[in-house]
Amino acid sequence: MRQATVVDVRPALNVVASVIRWLSLAYLLPLGVALFYRENPWPYLIPFGLAAVLGLAGERLIRAPKELGVREGFLVVALAWLTIAAFGAIPYALDHHNVVDAYFESMSGFTTTGATILTDIENEPKGLLMWRQFTQWLGGMGIIVLAIAILPKLSVGGRQLMETEAPGPNVEKLTPRIYQTARALWKVYVGVSLVEIGTLKLLGMSFFDSVAHTFSTMATGGFSTHALSLADFSPAIQWATLVFMLLAGTNFALMYRVFCGRFVALKHDSEFHFYLGLIVISGLLIALLLPGMPLEARLRHGLFQAISIITTTGFASVDFEQWSNVLKLVLLALMFFGGCAGSTGGSIKIVRSLLVFKFIFREWRKVIHPQAVLPVRLGRQTVSENAINGIMAFAVLYVTTFAVGSLLLLLDTTVQGLDLSVLEGVSMVAATLGNVGPAFGVAGPMASYAQLPDTAKLLLTFLMWAGRLELFPVIVLMTREYWRR
Amino acid sequence: MRQATVVDVRPALNVVASVIRWLSLAYLLPLGVALFYRENPWPYLIPFGLAAVLGLAGERLIRAPKELGVREGFLVVALAWLTIAAFGAIPYALDHHNVVDAYFESMSGFTTTGATILTDIENEPKGLLMWRQFTQWLGGMGIIVLAIAILPKLSVGGRQLMETEAPGPNVEKLTPRIYQTARALWKVYVGVSLVEIGTLKLLGMSFFDSVAHTFSTMATGGFSTHALSLADFSPAIQWATLVFMLLAGTNFALMYRVFCGRFVALKHDSEFHFYLGLIVISGLLIALLLPGMPLEARLRHGLFQAISIITTTGFASVDFEQWSNVLKLVLLALMFFGGCAGSTGGSIKIVRSLLVFKFIFREWRKVIHPQAVLPVRLGRQTVSENAINGIMAFAVLYVTTFAVGSLLLLLDTTVQGLDLSVLEGVSMVAATLGNVGPAFGVAGPMASYAQLPDTAKLLLTFLMWAGRLELFPVIVLMTREYWRR
Repeated sequence: MRQATVVDVRPALNVVASVIRWLSLAYLLPLGVALFYRENPWPYLIPFGLAAVLGLAGERLIRAPKELGVREGFLVVALAWLTIAAFGAIPYALDHHNVVDAYFESMSGFTTTGATILTDIENEPKGLLMWRQFTQWLGGMGIIVLAIAILPKLSVGGRQLMETEAPGPNVEKLTPRIYQTARALWKVYVGVSLVEIGTLKLLGMSFFDSVAHTFSTMATGGFSTHALSLADFSPAIQWATLVFMLLAGTNFALMYRVFCGRFVALKHDSEFHFYLGLIVISGLLIALLLPGMPLEARLRHGLFQAISIITTTGFASVDFEQWSNVLKLVLLALMFFGGCAGSTGGSIKIVRSLLVFKFIFREWRKVIHPQAVLPVRLGRQTVSENAINGIMAFAVLYVTTFAVGSLLLLLDTTVQGLDLSVLEGVSMVAATLGNVGPAFGVAGPMASYAQLPDTAKLLLTFLMWAGRLELFPVIVLMTREYWRR
Repeated sequence: MRQATVVDVRPALNVVASVIRWLSLAYLLPLGVALFYRENPWPYLIPFGLAAVLGLAGERLIRAPKELGVREGFLVVALAWLTIAAFGAIPYALDHHNVVDAYFESMSGFTTTGATILTDIENEPKGLLMWRQFTQWLGGMGIIVLAIAILPKLSVGGRQLMETEAPGPNVEKLTPRIYQTARALWKVYVGVSLVEIGTLKLLGMSFFDSVAHTFSTMATGGFSTHALSLADFSPAIQWATLVFMLLAGTNFALMYRVFCGRFVALKHDSEFHFYLGLIVISGLLIALLLPGMPLEARLRHGLFQAISIITTTGFASVDFEQWSNVLKLVLLALMFFGGCAGSTGGSIKIVRSLLVFKFIFREWRKVIHPQAVLPVRLGRQTVSENAINGIMAFAVLYVTTFAVGSLLLLLDTTVQGLDLSVLEGVSMVAATLGNVGPAFGVAGPMASYAQLPDTAKLLLTFLMWAGRLELFPVIVLMTREYWRR
């Protein structure tokens, strides 16, 4: 009964093959680390060869795309993340981890989530730990392209979110200018990363840990090479990490402008103001409610955790699993804001949250002035009704996915005999869907997702993927309409 | 610096005075019960006199409204519910309850919430218990007028929700036709109430309990004269109550049409279909997951609790506090749907939830067909973009209020030394904001809100009031723009 497929999957496969070929080079880093520490090199050599051969073969055998339309864009993005995560899982699987765990950890890395199934981090091989950290940083690079090139096309209000002079929604090709923008933002990404490595090293971290935690910070990932995360390091290092997390959650286009000397951009960016406001308020609230410790420690832990969660990084400077319920609820609420648009942060994103509130405010003013035309503004720009509609749909879809995901997770774990509390269940879903990482209870910041049954892990892996792709591409691919005309 | 007030509060006060004068008659019912059972009649005689005198005086002394505009409508509604709840609290206060508890219980009754602070229900005077039940039924009558006359004016998509041929948003007077519609729906309300009293009596309930539980059911309130709620009655009575709850959560205009013989209305009402679908799916899911009991009992408890929560009644046929976490999460999720528009149910309302999903579906189709014009339809009617905007704003504002309310409640109780779990806290907020009633934990279906500190009780009282008024009027009254031109 199905009509002929209109979407041509070959160009998408070709692009994915090309990405995989490039990915092969990434294994050289953990390979080098393994050789340096005299560990088994095969977990990196095998996928290196596999990715290179399969990538090259795919590129040659599958017809090259003449032009990549928006319809094909969905497929490229969705397939690329799934495939990359599969290749990324090989080192874990060749170590002693089972396939589901390996895929979970790899997806968690490439989506910059930072949710882990490792239970004995310090005893894993150094090569594997560096691979784990590196997948986040690579994922972050991918997200920057995603935010510039693909998501703005989905008319979920993405276009207005980027501060670049992005092309209209009808330009359906990947233009050279997008590559140019991507390159500029990558420069920021790499530049700030180098500064962070230097800073952490200066503050007394080992070189290995400095690189590892920089990969995690800049990608807002959250994996650590230490089981106690940042709680294992000095207050100075925690303060420094806090600042770099703050930067990683900022719009990279804004950072680029500031680095180019246009400081005035900071003044007019209402997303950035809202982001800082949320951090200061929630950070101070946490500091106020933390049990007896010196003021500096309160402020540090308050701001650290607020920034870590809102940027969807997921580092911990303290085991917040021990905090009171009201503080846990604050953190849970922060999981829904996410970083700024054009950052590597996940979740709903600050600018969307801001526009949702502005929209509500507009609608209530309409109640008083039913005849008035009241556009929603962002800074000095008017946001189109079309974009606003997309953003509202996204926000509600996000919360709905969260609710349905929570029900499915609790249903699955209950049936399989694992009794999660409601807070544990919903926080795991919020933390994976929002690409945050740690949750509460069994998956707390100093614990891991290892205890969950395989089906639950697969569900959460799906949520990490869907959350990172901002839901709509995933849902679009599930419709029959996508596959026909 | 404030400009001259443009909103004239006198007409609003006049209307409220008139409502209070009518309310005085309501005390005659508990007075009669008290006399019949030889209880202290003063808790009803005093407010009877007070309401009659103050109401009459208010009506005389304050200038009568020539015409009630939409701006004044907000004030009337908000003031009326606050004032009625204050007068309704007098009998509790003249019994041994403190003022905060009395106001909480009275607001809970008139908003048809059913959250209680009574801890020893069976030992309260019969007169007070009947007053408590009666306030719900009176509140239900008020809600029917509210739904027809006031809320449709607020351009939060209310107008499209009523199945009546409602006047456009520019008609700002209470027209005679609205009174006519209200009278028709009141007939349904009173008629079904009488049938329920008869049915419950036939099935073996005492006359007192039949009347008491009918008041609760038809108003989707949830107060019971028994501490164990409906769990104290036979399966036959539970089945009957289940059916009447189902009716009470249905659009009364739809019921009126069906009673007039227009059965075809049932076929075209997509809200009604969505309502039944939700009930059947969640009811069966609960039945499936309930621990070992006979099939009839599973189905009964599954459907009973699903209907009780989704209609925002809050009766319990079993102590669902003992259920597993996944079932609690199902019930928590159901608290956000609410009854059909034009019923006495609270929360977001079925038709809005349906339209939110339709809106998301439309937005995702727009991703595939960016150029297409895709209106959102309800049955065979197109819903205006204006109405859709209002509904989306309402849904998000509702969830935001829920989140902020939960944070405030946990913050308040933590500071005051009461350690609520996150589930307890959020369920109390969802249950009061949605006018459901019982929550989980200390405020479970067989327990009460009595343990909460006074500040928490006042917060929840505010949420019951704000939820019942559908948030926007409350927020509008808080803006300066409302009070100036």
